[in-house]
Amino acid sequence: MKIAIAGAGAMGSRFGVKLQQAGNAVTLIDNWADHVRAIQTNGLVVTKDGHDTVIPMTAALPQDVHDTFDLIILFTKAMQMDHMLQELKAQLGNQPAVLVLANGIGNVETIERYVPKQNIVAGTTVWSSSLTGPGHITVTGSGSISLQAIVPDQFGDLDHIVETLNGAGLKASPAPDVLAAIWKKAGLNSVLNTYCTLFDCNIAEFGALPNWRELTAGVLDEFQAVATAANVAFDAQADTDLIAAQFAPDKNGEHYPSMHQDMANRRPTEIDFLNGYVAQLGQKLAVPAPNNALLTQLIHSQEALHGIA
Amino acid sequence: MKIAIAGAGAMGSRFGVKLQQAGNAVTLIDNWADHVRAIQTNGLVVTKDGHDTVIPMTAALPQDVHDTFDLIILFTKAMQMDHMLQELKAQLGNQPAVLVLANGIGNVETIERYVPKQNIVAGTTVWSSSLTGPGHITVTGSGSISLQAIVPDQFGDLDHIVETLNGAGLKASPAPDVLAAIWKKAGLNSVLNTYCTLFDCNIAEFGALPNWRELTAGVLDEFQAVATAANVAFDAQADTDLIAAQFAPDKNGEHYPSMHQDMANRRPTEIDFLNGYVAQLGQKLAVPAPNNALLTQLIHSQEALHGIA
Repeated sequence: MKIAIAGAGAMGSRFGVKLQQAGNAVTLIDNWADHVRAIQTNGLVVTKDGHDTVIPMTAALPQDVHDTFDLIILFTKAMQMDHMLQELKAQLGNQPAVLVLANGIGNVETIERYVPKQNIVAGTTVWSSSLTGPGHITVTGSGSISLQAIVPDQFGDLDHIVETLNGAGLKASPAPDVLAAIWKKAGLNSVLNTYCTLFDCNIAEFGALPNWRELTAGVLDEFQAVATAANVAFDAQADTDLIAAQFAPDKNGEHYPSMHQDMANRRPTEIDFLNGYVAQLGQKLAVPAPNNALLTQLIHSQEALHGIA
Repeated sequence: MKIAIAGAGAMGSRFGVKLQQAGNAVTLIDNWADHVRAIQTNGLVVTKDGHDTVIPMTAALPQDVHDTFDLIILFTKAMQMDHMLQELKAQLGNQPAVLVLANGIGNVETIERYVPKQNIVAGTTVWSSSLTGPGHITVTGSGSISLQAIVPDQFGDLDHIVETLNGAGLKASPAPDVLAAIWKKAGLNSVLNTYCTLFDCNIAEFGALPNWRELTAGVLDEFQAVATAANVAFDAQADTDLIAAQFAPDKNGEHYPSMHQDMANRRPTEIDFLNGYVAQLGQKLAVPAPNNALLTQLIHSQEALHGIA
């Protein structure tokens, strides 16, 4: 397939490499000029188990892309999603399939403003990757993808997309309820990302707090109430169990979540598409979500104190 | 008068000095043995405008006090109040007047368990002081005291206490509604202490946050709702104005609130007698106070991360 990765940071680059190595024609699209230039000049450097591999790849700024694609995979951060889609208007003209695997709730609403519903596939992934510098990613472990068409009975050929992803070893499988999967992952992130950022601690340190269950329930009970009002399946208890499973040092305990990395590196966080999304949807549906609203404010305050506009 | 200062830290010591210099017989009572021993051995060192003065004073651990007093001024931190009163049971036997000027809401309820209502005077003060080390305080500026008997028409001679305080230059005046004054100060502290501690920032930095008004309203709107249900006068707008007046660098802008100092020095905070008190009272009165409840949890989490039991 001819595939564009829009938002070719840590995760997008890792997916791009695997899809290219499986024989697809891949273009990495990103707005970080230094990153794009480094890939164009030197290829993408992938560090795995201490070894560097240099992989020649096609990379471009959005405005320099003149090709069209069969599939566009969106890995843009939630708050840059709208801008990226505007820049890709020409590429969206030929009605490619659009797959969104980026974190956060609300991405599908954004995409629907630019892409017909029947062309959208949404999903979640537990693959991970770090952007070590311009043109350089560091990868560990493996992962999987759950995905579903937004309007399942109108989507062209989902099997073909699943086969393409699996041909690249990305372990994709159809999800029966992808919206529930997105909320489940967002619930986990709205606890671990948010509190670890607020407290400047890693996941194991959060898990060692005497009141981690109260803090978690404060977020997830509201998630469940808002999800129920929005007709999305959400189980606060199951999400709490999933969170508890991350604490072990041999799982993700030593890990600082991505929002913590964003704050430390003075980048805007995704808070408005995690706790902030649920707080706003709660307000719209008259389901109070005061904890998520306050946590959103607190992270925005921290952004301001870190000089993040 | 024969006066005991129970809880002779920064503020208690400053008050003790002034009352002794005005001719009263003052005993400083504290549970910090190093502090008591330093005063007994070398006198209290008071640093003001860069000058040190050494003032001989009587100091004792609670268990070593065998005297009785006309007036006991309680400057014990809210969470040590109950313990201090238990240790002073013998001194409370002769029915002294008990004046509480310590921060936090709920102190009067604690004192009523040990002292007849008609002997209690409550108040607030804007005097300030820092405990620089054992037997050593540093003082700046001046202040005032507002106070009122808890059962005004049953209290013996409030004028005498006011005169004694004013004879020592402490600028005391009767308050028409001391409970309202305590809540007003607690409202201010529940905003500035709590957020500055959470964000590790000073008062000016808090005031420079784009969303400081939303953060403040999150706390004080709940204060007002709970206060109203508890028949206490509270004006969230007036408290917000008072908070805004602290931001200027020539006011308290450069200052890190006492809770921030407690956290940095690994001492338990007063959160349960500020936001935590209102959250609990709200629960009792069926007036939701979720922001104050969450902020209480967050500060307790930070205490745990700082190794504070």
